[in-house]
Amino acid sequence: MTDLQAILDSIYTELLPRLGEGKVADYIPELAKVDPHQFGMAIATVDGNVRSVGNADIPFSIQSISKVFMLTLALGKVGEGLWKRVGREPSGTAFNSIVQLEREEGIPRNPFINAGAIAVSDVVLSGHAPREAIGEFLRFVRYVADDESITIDDRVARSETQTGFRNVALANFMRAYGNLDHPVEHVLGVYFHQCALSMSCEQLARAGLYLAARGSNPTTGHSVVSPKRARRINALMLTCGHYDGSGDFAYRVGLPGKSGVGGGILAVAPGIGSIAVWSPGLNKVGNSQLGAVALEMLAVRTGWSVFGD
Amino acid sequence: MTDLQAILDSIYTELLPRLGEGKVADYIPELAKVDPHQFGMAIATVDGNVRSVGNADIPFSIQSISKVFMLTLALGKVGEGLWKRVGREPSGTAFNSIVQLEREEGIPRNPFINAGAIAVSDVVLSGHAPREAIGEFLRFVRYVADDESITIDDRVARSETQTGFRNVALANFMRAYGNLDHPVEHVLGVYFHQCALSMSCEQLARAGLYLAARGSNPTTGHSVVSPKRARRINALMLTCGHYDGSGDFAYRVGLPGKSGVGGGILAVAPGIGSIAVWSPGLNKVGNSQLGAVALEMLAVRTGWSVFGD
Amino acid sequence: MTDLQAILDSIYTELLPRLGEGKVADYIPELAKVDPHQFGMAIATVDGNVRSVGNADIPFSIQSISKVFMLTLALGKVGEGLWKRVGREPSGTAFNSIVQLEREEGIPRNPFINAGAIAVSDVVLSGHAPREAIGEFLRFVRYVADDESITIDDRVARSETQTGFRNVALANFMRAYGNLDHPVEHVLGVYFHQCALSMSCEQLARAGLYLAARGSNPTTGHSVVSPKRARRINALMLTCGHYDGSGDFAYRVGLPGKSGVGGGILAVAPGIGSIAVWSPGLNKVGNSQLGAVALEMLAVRTGWSVFGD
Amino acid sequence: MTDLQAILDSIYTELLPRLGEGKVADYIPELAKVDPHQFGMAIATVDGNVRSVGNADIPFSIQSISKVFMLTLALGKVGEGLWKRVGREPSGTAFNSIVQLEREEGIPRNPFINAGAIAVSDVVLSGHAPREAIGEFLRFVRYVADDESITIDDRVARSETQTGFRNVALANFMRAYGNLDHPVEHVLGVYFHQCALSMSCEQLARAGLYLAARGSNPTTGHSVVSPKRARRINALMLTCGHYDGSGDFAYRVGLPGKSGVGGGILAVAPGIGSIAVWSPGLNKVGNSQLGAVALEMLAVRTGWSVFGD
Repeated sequence: MTDLQAILDSIYTELLPRLGEGKVADYIPELAKVDPHQFGMAIATVDGNVRSVGNADIPFSIQSISKVFMLTLALGKVGEGLWKRVGREPSGTAFNSIVQLEREEGIPRNPFINAGAIAVSDVVLSGHAPREAIGEFLRFVRYVADDESITIDDRVARSETQTGFRNVALANFMRAYGNLDHPVEHVLGVYFHQCALSMSCEQLARAGLYLAARGSNPTTGHSVVSPKRARRINALMLTCGHYDGSGDFAYRVGLPGKSGVGGGILAVAPGIGSIAVWSPGLNKVGNSQLGAVALEMLAVRTGWSVFGD
Repeated sequence: MTDLQAILDSIYTELLPRLGEGKVADYIPELAKVDPHQFGMAIATVDGNVRSVGNADIPFSIQSISKVFMLTLALGKVGEGLWKRVGREPSGTAFNSIVQLEREEGIPRNPFINAGAIAVSDVVLSGHAPREAIGEFLRFVRYVADDESITIDDRVARSETQTGFRNVALANFMRAYGNLDHPVEHVLGVYFHQCALSMSCEQLARAGLYLAARGSNPTTGHSVVSPKRARRINALMLTCGHYDGSGDFAYRVGLPGKSGVGGGILAVAPGIGSIAVWSPGLNKVGNSQLGAVALEMLAVRTGWSVFGD
Repeated sequence: MTDLQAILDSIYTELLPRLGEGKVADYIPELAKVDPHQFGMAIATVDGNVRSVGNADIPFSIQSISKVFMLTLALGKVGEGLWKRVGREPSGTAFNSIVQLEREEGIPRNPFINAGAIAVSDVVLSGHAPREAIGEFLRFVRYVADDESITIDDRVARSETQTGFRNVALANFMRAYGNLDHPVEHVLGVYFHQCALSMSCEQLARAGLYLAARGSNPTTGHSVVSPKRARRINALMLTCGHYDGSGDFAYRVGLPGKSGVGGGILAVAPGIGSIAVWSPGLNKVGNSQLGAVALEMLAVRTGWSVFGD
Repeated sequence: MTDLQAILDSIYTELLPRLGEGKVADYIPELAKVDPHQFGMAIATVDGNVRSVGNADIPFSIQSISKVFMLTLALGKVGEGLWKRVGREPSGTAFNSIVQLEREEGIPRNPFINAGAIAVSDVVLSGHAPREAIGEFLRFVRYVADDESITIDDRVARSETQTGFRNVALANFMRAYGNLDHPVEHVLGVYFHQCALSMSCEQLARAGLYLAARGSNPTTGHSVVSPKRARRINALMLTCGHYDGSGDFAYRVGLPGKSGVGGGILAVAPGIGSIAVWSPGLNKVGNSQLGAVALEMLAVRTGWSVFGD
């Protein structure tokens, strides 16, 4: 196997002069405070090793990357019935667009745009109090990451609660169409907290390993999902994981991935490993600019693209 | 390696009672005449073998599958400059939608929706007469398939020319935005003829082999594209190859694929082989209904999904 | 002058067999309880007379008709500056559509669709508590109607508050674009109460008289707006007063009018009088079905159309 | 009666320093050559008088104003059945938008946007050759204007034929939905020639007089339409006559009007007279900028607004 540490080091060295590129998300005040010059990257391989570079041990707000874990949790609860509530197609519009929701009568296009993730949060609530659902979600992420130190950043959650008007709009719109079972505040309570999860690249790479390893964490042996479900979540990440930049990410990187406006990206090389990268500056469709560049370098140097070596 | 012939046979046997499902495309009169009970499937592997089942030797109208070959040809002519003329994102709308084109000022979302393919045809024309461009395209397909017997069905081309009003609308709309360099009739002349290409599953599987084999036909040794470009075309097929059903196809099948309203699908298992399936009945987003089912069965039984085994 | 009472009587007699046509609004539970067989009509002329027929003295929920009075109040407060916050064009979409709002970045198309009226409510709030703004609005309507007995139906207001998810979505969406100055709950508190105003046809016809009489109530002599502003409000009613049925209403009736989902319509014959009609059954774009028919009869029999006699 | 000539003179004097404002239509090459500093205005009153000012005797390309006459002709042929082919609602989008056409399956929103006018041209063709339909249209306009010298500018027609790609797109799109009975080239042949009609303000004001005078030309006594139909055409002009600026025109001017990209506007004061104004510079929604200003001045100074004096 290639020397992954050397590859990570070379990527870091090449990107050093470009740190700070892109635009830090400013619509969530807490996120706007983040230093854009940070960069971390970690790879957890199915053989149990973790390599990393840069600020790979600094926790950041994983934001929408959390949607992968919440989707996994929801599928565990209701199985394929989930797809009555949310679609599986790329949206062709921005992550927070409401247009599609009106055209398709309250059914979000996929679980990785905001509306879809809000519907998934509603499914996970399943009659419980928001606090319990948030607790369940946190326990689940700690379980898949095998790390009890992972926490939710309350300031970020509060910041989003105070400013997330578009998400409130999306949730109420779905409620109007009967596609939310719980009160909007409860659902958004869960949603805003899930997005406020703080994880380092190393934690995140470990947490995503089940997607690369037929549904189980190869280190702990913990089974998370079936191999089939792992494949399917990967497929959704590839077609929908980067909002309206998913096609471009697949074209350039060739790996299933999910981005967050905190500047993180979780990518999966099926059968090989799970990669987390973090660089706060975003491109114009809201994905980490240098994060995608780093993953493109990695895919080229390792030959890990799912589309051929 | 698994016994591919046995797998093909089992798929065929299971699907026999369902032949005729779906709805044959009726907007092109010539296509509406096709017997919906036909079914063929062929696999060409990188080791040079071809296995097939059912009506795998009967030529059918490959329609939009031709967009893969035309894209390959255009990239060969103008390289990555092509992306100034057409995007790389899933459309989130029907294959013949014009809405997106107005919103994004004449730039089609990707080369696999009709508008995008028309722009690609315009690129391939590059100052030549339509007859020459069509000839060049036909020679190219014969070259990648290593089969001089492949032809264009003039009746189908004529049928489309007489009834393809939406495509005429799309082309004129792009022309209005300055995104066509040649007269609309010339561009559509090329487009309608490319779609009217007749190929059997066996021919098609062979023709697609370069996408599975790092850009070269392993049998003939003919180099078609670089390994990088092969990966990228595969990526586009996965995110955009089934119109507004691309997410679902990736979810269920997990292979890059391109469908045509003639009922064919070309799928690629990178590093392994190229698969062609044909069943004329379409589902409601315009993709072969049983073709997708057959490919799902194949992916499950072979473990070829790019998203994990 | 024609014998208005005779005309009203003839309209009522002709419509009697059709009472109950259309569909009572059911998305606000309180409104769904209304008996669809009621019908009232009243005309207040600039000479101070009021003629009426049927249930013209029964108060009903005027709903969106209140937007005319709220607009008048807002224009009085901020003048033409209001048009920075809301447009003056017909929407081409449903009254509660959010699509346009995204396309035009939080600026509603006109003050008579829900989003526009919510923005107008925000303007009227102007730093006050919702209770005060509601009080000011109620006083204003009582002033223009010269009737202190007019009230707001709290059950209706509460019913809307509990079920108006789409309006909550619209308000939050505008808030996200910075087009609301006050908390969403405050703005909607005003909006839901203004819509819950109860008025009879007779009260409503009197209240609208200033629009027919150069901006002043000819009976009381109360000046409400300038003649120019009265004309302009009439123009908005004609182009935008019936949502996506405004063109049809202008075509058939030829008078400025504003409808409400309670089944009421206020129409204005400039220089002549103000007409209120009430019939709870709605047509498919959400306007009173028989109300429009009655006004068409009236316009034909009186020659009051603004488009010629 | 007010001294109309004095009012026209005062408007002209005030606007003189502003001549040249706006942007001359450039998408039809022939129109782009017009001197933007020209300005003419003419009023034909129901008593048979015509007053004018400026370049009121210079013929200009009336473009979309022709849609009023074509609509009149089509209604004469098929009556209210026309409304199965085209709607009566403002569009909420640009004059040449195709988005609405897809959403509403080939039925244009109204007869005054391009798609709607193309459908109306198809109705007028009614099985005849384009040349005959164009001849019939020209005879009709000469009849209503009582002026045999009116002609079609073939260079403008040819210019549009060569560059009107969007209109070709619109027509083919409707054809795809089955909303055109004749070949697209025939329909557009009629459409492009109708738009190329050359008329002076004086001719145009006379031609529009039937709309102000209960459907008949008061000078010649020629009956064109019934009083009811005249009202209805006026209503359509008011709600839809200025594309996505119709609401604004109604708000400021208060008269039914129809604009053309040649810089002309025809307005109607029901019962009083017909007004034509011409100033080539357009505002951003494609209507004559100073033409609308002139009409606003006129409406204020005469009190002719249909919405009150």
